[in-house]
Amino acid sequence: MHLPFANVSEREQQPPSLALSTVIFALRPDPRTGRSSLWLPLVRRIRQPYRDRWALPGGPLLARESLAEAAARNLAETTGLAPRYLEQLYAFGGPERSPAPRVVSIVYWALVQPDEAALAREEENVRWFEAGSPGELSFDHNDIVAYALWRLRNKMEYASIAYAFLGEKFTLAQLREVYEAVLGRELDPANFRRQLRSASDIEPTDEYLQGGRHRPPRLYRYTGSLAAASGAPSSTHHLEQP
Amino acid sequence: MHLPFANVSEREQQPPSLALSTVIFALRPDPRTGRSSLWLPLVRRIRQPYRDRWALPGGPLLARESLAEAAARNLAETTGLAPRYLEQLYAFGGPERSPAPRVVSIVYWALVQPDEAALAREEENVRWFEAGSPGELSFDHNDIVAYALWRLRNKMEYASIAYAFLGEKFTLAQLREVYEAVLGRELDPANFRRQLRSASDIEPTDEYLQGGRHRPPRLYRYTGSLAAASGAPSSTHHLEQP
Repeated sequence: MHLPFANVSEREQQPPSLALSTVIFALRPDPRTGRSSLWLPLVRRIRQPYRDRWALPGGPLLARESLAEAAARNLAETTGLAPRYLEQLYAFGGPERSPAPRVVSIVYWALVQPDEAALAREEENVRWFEAGSPGELSFDHNDIVAYALWRLRNKMEYASIAYAFLGEKFTLAQLREVYEAVLGRELDPANFRRQLRSASDIEPTDEYLQGGRHRPPRLYRYTGSLAAASGAPSSTHHLEQP
Repeated sequence: MHLPFANVSEREQQPPSLALSTVIFALRPDPRTGRSSLWLPLVRRIRQPYRDRWALPGGPLLARESLAEAAARNLAETTGLAPRYLEQLYAFGGPERSPAPRVVSIVYWALVQPDEAALAREEENVRWFEAGSPGELSFDHNDIVAYALWRLRNKMEYASIAYAFLGEKFTLAQLREVYEAVLGRELDPANFRRQLRSASDIEPTDEYLQGGRHRPPRLYRYTGSLAAASGAPSSTHHLEQP
């Protein structure tokens, strides 16, 4: 709402408004090398501030929505994406992050599988960028993307989050490719295979990757739960409650 | 603000308001067994809704504060505590969590060391409760406490968060006591010691615990950074940014 008679100090005293934004990561082939790398979709702003700059997809919280529902709806409206894995990342609310009135953004993040990423609209005002070099974004969105990348790399080390990028069945090479894209370095295939074997949360299936190869690679399945990889409160914790 | 003419649907359309709350965990001796256990301070509500019920300490976001500053100020005002370790936990904002107008709470959590916990006011409207059985709290605060406990236990398994409960120097027995209090079960001292030795982030000092014992135990020091245990965005991530 524009208040024609409000001076700066009155606007500063307006209560902060609340918005939801989402960082979406997907693996896509790098057009130069053909190798998988990490990408995210951004939306071009059509009004001030930061008009014509790229920004994380987002929008307001409506009356009857939960925070996660609002994040999912805003994401679908701006990009057409409906990721299966959507988790709260962090709330950003510093007083200097936007011109008054102040906006507190609760940021969600999503990892999307290649089939989901393919459904995203590519149009004039929605475009995919390499996660590591998205250019100069609106507001503090570069900070938010950098933080989300840091959290993702961190989480790959101990949690089962890598599986959120893959379909139900995958080869060990596909899984290694996820790790390589997120960590930004190549991994030794033999070492990677050995470490995985000692992890208990994947199992071989009886199926093999389709294709004309002489020795098609075996498909594996993740047996843990993706909810366990998420830090979100779930009904499980509520049940534990006294 | 009470609007005398507002009907329910008008109130539902008010924009959500924003509040900060904090879950503070400290180790204190259980009065029955003398062993360390996990406690948290709560504040008695003096107005409706939930008047006279216990609640997490909290309050509003003021114009020039960051979210963390607002959490720290509200905590100091309600309990007198100023914890060194204060981290954002999660934003809770379901439409059913409070009577209209809706409140979105950004929850911080803090781990306080025994010397800090001793400084907390104990007065009629501030009291410490056992974290596992705080009774029936206001709003969804039981869910929030259960979630914070779950995150704490989870974090103890991989992060250096345990050291946030201890002073600069500590014995291995004191460190084990932290783990026992948080995980809620006894650990084998010899196994615990062996596992710690293989961790690289503590080192022995030349000092020993004061007291009249025949063989006073050696004091150790944590050599990692507490910031690494925290999930908060820090200047480090901003530097990594392109």
